[in-house]
Amino acid sequence: MPNAAATADKALQYIDSLKRIVGDAFVFTDEESLHKYAHDETENLHFLPAVVVKPRSTDEISAIMQFCNSNKIPVTPRGAGTGLSGGALPQLGGVLLSTERMNTILEIDERNLQVTTEPGVITEVLQNAVKEKGLFYPPDPSSRGSCFIGGNIAENSGGPKAVKYGVVKDYVLNLEVVLPNGAVIWTGANVLKNSTGYNLTQLIVGSEGTLGIVTKIVLKLLPFPKYDLLMLVPFNSLEKAGEAVSAIFRAGFTPSAMELVEINALKIVSKFVDSSVVPVTDEMEAHLIIEVDGNHMETLMSEMEAIAELLTKFDCGDVFFADDAQQKAELWKLRRRVAEAVKIDGYTIEEDTVVPRAELPALIRGVKALGKQYSFDVVCYGHAGDGNLHIRIKKPGSIYSLNNPDVIPALKALFELVKQLGGTISGEHGIGLIQKEYMNIVFDDASLQLMRGIKKIFDPNNILNSGKIFDMD
Amino acid sequence: MPNAAATADKALQYIDSLKRIVGDAFVFTDEESLHKYAHDETENLHFLPAVVVKPRSTDEISAIMQFCNSNKIPVTPRGAGTGLSGGALPQLGGVLLSTERMNTILEIDERNLQVTTEPGVITEVLQNAVKEKGLFYPPDPSSRGSCFIGGNIAENSGGPKAVKYGVVKDYVLNLEVVLPNGAVIWTGANVLKNSTGYNLTQLIVGSEGTLGIVTKIVLKLLPFPKYDLLMLVPFNSLEKAGEAVSAIFRAGFTPSAMELVEINALKIVSKFVDSSVVPVTDEMEAHLIIEVDGNHMETLMSEMEAIAELLTKFDCGDVFFADDAQQKAELWKLRRRVAEAVKIDGYTIEEDTVVPRAELPALIRGVKALGKQYSFDVVCYGHAGDGNLHIRIKKPGSIYSLNNPDVIPALKALFELVKQLGGTISGEHGIGLIQKEYMNIVFDDASLQLMRGIKKIFDPNNILNSGKIFDMD
Repeated sequence: MPNAAATADKALQYIDSLKRIVGDAFVFTDEESLHKYAHDETENLHFLPAVVVKPRSTDEISAIMQFCNSNKIPVTPRGAGTGLSGGALPQLGGVLLSTERMNTILEIDERNLQVTTEPGVITEVLQNAVKEKGLFYPPDPSSRGSCFIGGNIAENSGGPKAVKYGVVKDYVLNLEVVLPNGAVIWTGANVLKNSTGYNLTQLIVGSEGTLGIVTKIVLKLLPFPKYDLLMLVPFNSLEKAGEAVSAIFRAGFTPSAMELVEINALKIVSKFVDSSVVPVTDEMEAHLIIEVDGNHMETLMSEMEAIAELLTKFDCGDVFFADDAQQKAELWKLRRRVAEAVKIDGYTIEEDTVVPRAELPALIRGVKALGKQYSFDVVCYGHAGDGNLHIRIKKPGSIYSLNNPDVIPALKALFELVKQLGGTISGEHGIGLIQKEYMNIVFDDASLQLMRGIKKIFDPNNILNSGKIFDMD
Repeated sequence: MPNAAATADKALQYIDSLKRIVGDAFVFTDEESLHKYAHDETENLHFLPAVVVKPRSTDEISAIMQFCNSNKIPVTPRGAGTGLSGGALPQLGGVLLSTERMNTILEIDERNLQVTTEPGVITEVLQNAVKEKGLFYPPDPSSRGSCFIGGNIAENSGGPKAVKYGVVKDYVLNLEVVLPNGAVIWTGANVLKNSTGYNLTQLIVGSEGTLGIVTKIVLKLLPFPKYDLLMLVPFNSLEKAGEAVSAIFRAGFTPSAMELVEINALKIVSKFVDSSVVPVTDEMEAHLIIEVDGNHMETLMSEMEAIAELLTKFDCGDVFFADDAQQKAELWKLRRRVAEAVKIDGYTIEEDTVVPRAELPALIRGVKALGKQYSFDVVCYGHAGDGNLHIRIKKPGSIYSLNNPDVIPALKALFELVKQLGGTISGEHGIGLIQKEYMNIVFDDASLQLMRGIKKIFDPNNILNSGKIFDMD
């Protein structure tokens, strides 16, 4: 790989070429712009690109890629910059390609329950647009108010609804992709079933912008469920809360959300958003947030009651049923802002572990033990129904940054535990820049070599989001 | 590629090596065995392998692959041989590797709602085994009583339940795979969400045995739904039936099956299985079979009534509700045996087209027009809710085989229509040997080159199920 400085110089020489492609107004080299695009939501990382380009069309992106490929200029594609694994960081300098102007919902196909969109549409905007037609796009990452659907495709995002409805990959039918050499392909067809050739669609989803730039997205939609019910359940034992999660599914229920928030995280976020909706006592260790949804209110009521009854076997406290839309909104606001709140509170390092659902108590136990062993504070929260636990770390009295070599052995130990429990490193955030050195804990060399081989097929010059997920040899 | 005869000679020289790996008793070169493994359920195709090998373990398969890779001997993996696209045909001779002895269900994990199985387990056996624990593996190809789960993975099979529950790919969490060079990998982790590296799992699913041999499979399970209701609805117009399908989903219903059977197919299969459960009149053109399932009988009853009410807008005849388990079983038997019955009746060529659901009437109309244009008889049936229409062709007065050059222009015209409607060639059967020459209708050259590149990364010597899906330049 060329180093960042040399790359930057080279890219600057070609500013005029980029301007010819997208127009003067959409090529930026001023310091403010470069700094704005130098970071995402990952820790405190910061890398300046040489130039920021904001194309408006597939054709422009194709021309940019042809040009950069011919001239071996690194390109980093970027959505809204809400990523938590550094996937959009231009650590090699070069061209930062923002998809923010590709922000049109192209077609809501009510006959086929599909939507075709450009990548730069905010996820919640897309959700609201289809909801107006009575349709439902379930994946709902916490950042859905600001993240782009294109970034969700890149990271294979999840969110609370995943436990019933699946993650982004389960909704992507077809993608228009600009390859690193500028060629434009469609990966599949706009159909619900497809056994026609290798599944290029699913290869692109979750590939973190390393194989191509997604320029059009066809998503499957569902009918919007008419009703939902929400309850909050306190537990005096974090482990019991974890056991309860597994028991609910074994009993045959399929909630539309099954979230866990540890009491410390809840205290921090309650203070952060100045809410007292959730009662907190000294004995409590965790809360579960449980939602059911569907088209028949009576069915939902009886399901909710049956779940509440089941939970009494796990020493839960008084169940709090959200009475109206406002209470539901307040509970969800608390849940969605946990990450932000605990980050500001000093828990800067976030991990995105995922294990088989029933191993959640073992993971929580292990995480607490590792915290003691490596002297860090830890809070846990996340999508318990999926076994997807976000773990936030803070080391009292020191700036515990990712670059700190002390962190690495602790994270290694964490991921080894996760692997041992049948799990893996990332459930919905991706590997990006910051977790690639742990990939060999969960994949053997033969698998990593296959991934490198695939990267090389798509991107022989290694110009597109190079150095993310894994290094090439 | 070496030709079949030379390959066969070469393989024969190495029989002893194969015997050392799997034992004398599991290497077959007698004529009866070779003939038995020379065909699957695809048309009338027949290719003799040089030798049939039946390994019992991952280690044995790894040793076979190492050996064949070193000696550049073609290997064709095979499940139960129920495929409809020729994926298991050893058209290059060489080693036919049958997974039939890899037939153990390794673990039903009731805590995590997962099952780990070997590939040679019959799909229905697997379904029944998990059902005994109250669990549900939905994908149910018509051949589920005889096909292997490994073959289902290879072809990304579907079945009637796909319309609500998705296809095989939606249940595969993790795969143990023997690569062409004998290396053994796991593609992912046993988790419900995974954003850790490229999705090798989904790359293997549907790759028709061309990238590796699947030796262990971890599947997601659901709680088994307590109740289902089934109804049969006749229509005097095939097109109206197609329109009704789309309307049901637009109205917010999600049936667990939504099958269409054209009246000619129904007559043939009714005679074939000697059943008169479905009343047939001269005016009828098609029937829809509609199932709903769930845990609340009252909800299902009201859904069924609402659907029946909606259907009256599409000129349907009298709705027939299956009263008991026996009637349901008889209806499903009719549906499941349609393909077999019409094949015996001379409709030997089956296509597996899939379009966006609402385009079904246009597809049906187009197919009938093509039948007239190219002078063949055609019957349609299939998974209407998914837009997945099986089209069977017969040319009166001639043996209308796949090898007949007259067929090719007709199929090209069909697939061009499908492409024009936003669809693709195969929804659940795969491309295999018999449809690869139409791949360029739905994929442009850049996409096909990516697929070839991926094949080369996995199988540089092109020994594993070579010549399926596409030719390597």
